[in-house]
Amino acid sequence: MRVAVDAMGAEKGIGIVIEGALRAIEENPEIEVTLVGDEARIQDKIKSFSFTKPPFSIIHAPQVIEMSDSATASLKTKRNSSVSVVVDLVKEGKVDGLVSAGNTGAVMATSLLKLGKVRGVKRPCLAAVFPTLDGGKVVILDVGANVDCRPDYLFQFAVMGSIYAYKVLKRRRPRVGLLSIGAEENKGNELVLQTHKLLSQSSLNFVGNIEGGDITGGSVEVVVCDGFVGNIILKFAEGLARTALAIVDEELKSVLPGLVRMVSGKWLERLKKDFDYAEYGGVPLMGVKGVCVIAHGASSSKAIKNAILASFQYAQGRINQHIEMALAKKGVKDELTEG
Amino acid sequence: MRVAVDAMGAEKGIGIVIEGALRAIEENPEIEVTLVGDEARIQDKIKSFSFTKPPFSIIHAPQVIEMSDSATASLKTKRNSSVSVVVDLVKEGKVDGLVSAGNTGAVMATSLLKLGKVRGVKRPCLAAVFPTLDGGKVVILDVGANVDCRPDYLFQFAVMGSIYAYKVLKRRRPRVGLLSIGAEENKGNELVLQTHKLLSQSSLNFVGNIEGGDITGGSVEVVVCDGFVGNIILKFAEGLARTALAIVDEELKSVLPGLVRMVSGKWLERLKKDFDYAEYGGVPLMGVKGVCVIAHGASSSKAIKNAILASFQYAQGRINQHIEMALAKKGVKDELTEG
Repeated sequence: MRVAVDAMGAEKGIGIVIEGALRAIEENPEIEVTLVGDEARIQDKIKSFSFTKPPFSIIHAPQVIEMSDSATASLKTKRNSSVSVVVDLVKEGKVDGLVSAGNTGAVMATSLLKLGKVRGVKRPCLAAVFPTLDGGKVVILDVGANVDCRPDYLFQFAVMGSIYAYKVLKRRRPRVGLLSIGAEENKGNELVLQTHKLLSQSSLNFVGNIEGGDITGGSVEVVVCDGFVGNIILKFAEGLARTALAIVDEELKSVLPGLVRMVSGKWLERLKKDFDYAEYGGVPLMGVKGVCVIAHGASSSKAIKNAILASFQYAQGRINQHIEMALAKKGVKDELTEG
Repeated sequence: MRVAVDAMGAEKGIGIVIEGALRAIEENPEIEVTLVGDEARIQDKIKSFSFTKPPFSIIHAPQVIEMSDSATASLKTKRNSSVSVVVDLVKEGKVDGLVSAGNTGAVMATSLLKLGKVRGVKRPCLAAVFPTLDGGKVVILDVGANVDCRPDYLFQFAVMGSIYAYKVLKRRRPRVGLLSIGAEENKGNELVLQTHKLLSQSSLNFVGNIEGGDITGGSVEVVVCDGFVGNIILKFAEGLARTALAIVDEELKSVLPGLVRMVSGKWLERLKKDFDYAEYGGVPLMGVKGVCVIAHGASSSKAIKNAILASFQYAQGRINQHIEMALAKKGVKDELTEG
């Protein structure tokens, strides 16, 4: 299984990406990594690592798309960017998936244009995984690919989310909740009211509307919403996590002496792990014809590692084929239905 | 200054409401409280308090609107509910404001129907106050009154929020952010793109789009969004706060011995205070002709106290008059503009 990794997009630099690649290969030796980016800069950074021959290949891409670049403009003006080259590698079948921590808009636009959509998919969407109160996981989609949605898009997000929850989170008959402002089916905006009807008529394991407070409550494995709401939720969670950690940290410094701090470090780590969504390592762009995982711009090496592993799981789970079959209503497996 | 308090709506019972009223009167002796509800039950509960003559008056209301009641149906079938009576008291000018922790939909519908709207207001909205990372406060609106919004509604929310931030949060020239999925003015859904234009042309201190992660970041005092997004954000924050507290609590129990726990209790309290939005004590329904503060169903006595104080501040600040003047463009004070 081969994964192409954009070496240039991470805010913390090329070294973080190299480290992430090394950790992914170490954790799963089945994965072959190709780093894509400015070869001279990658080679230069490699010198600070201890190996003589790197355990990954390198493909040169002379241009870099900056965070400030327009997504659509960079498609035209930077045809030899690292983003463009990783997408080409997927398109040409030279790798099984890609990972990029670069400009999200540019990665989405390039993937959509060059790879196209899986047959039957109206709008690809971004799927993020959140931890739940009971120690489980929930996939929330769309978190930012589509700001204005129609009910049929949201219905497809539910199908794609169910497949992801089954194949990657390993949950049979994943429960689907529609994000709204009340549990009753008459609560919500026009989009939600119409989507509720579509989901009720489907064979998915739809449990009805859920509220904001239920997202991380563990009552569902799939949360469906439009990309505007999902993106705000995702970033709000990141913001709150930083606030919580800052408060805990500041207060710990002032109140707890050194030794106790070491002891309490254990749960601080857990809090950090549970709330730092940058650690989660990337959201797949579901519904494009190819495997495309977008990592957080501020990714750590662990986040890059997790994104590479996610790319592997996505490809190995043949998720795109399952989406195509499910939307053609030829292969909706029992594992996805309410049973 | 007189405030009518619905004694029946709080999930934790009448005792909590009485306690909240006592604490409010103690904190601000200018406030006169009238409790409204089933008089026999209120009198019965009063026995458990130590005073001989209660420092508040009681008005009997024989009916109770349950959380499960339909907002519109209860308007017709429960004309003598405590919610209905507190609203009547405001309408008749017998009190200066009301507080209810009851069925939010019913309180909103009753207030809107009986009190009507402040001249010029298209849609009343709910305004919630969040703490910010730098120790400040931010008002976010709408958090649930209007699920489907138009740009002109959001523009008015910005005006009302600015007045609230100035009069209650005491911030001159409050900065207004429009909640979206990117800081650039071309980022967002149709509603946001159109609202951005209206706000840019206004004299409000509009700083542009903000993202979900900026809500509690302290860069703005007013966050504007539609009631669907706002309600989800509000409830998601409550959910995350519970998750964070549960994790901290569980881990403290397992890791820290008793003595240290007592010491660390100090910052646990702060974390609780900063993140438990139920403690904040109510959101005003801005734009109705009268002062109406809706408290969280799960309010503590402190939350009820804070809601009564908020009602007082709202009435004393003559916020409705300021809204009317601002919307008529006759009295937009320098304190609200970008200067």
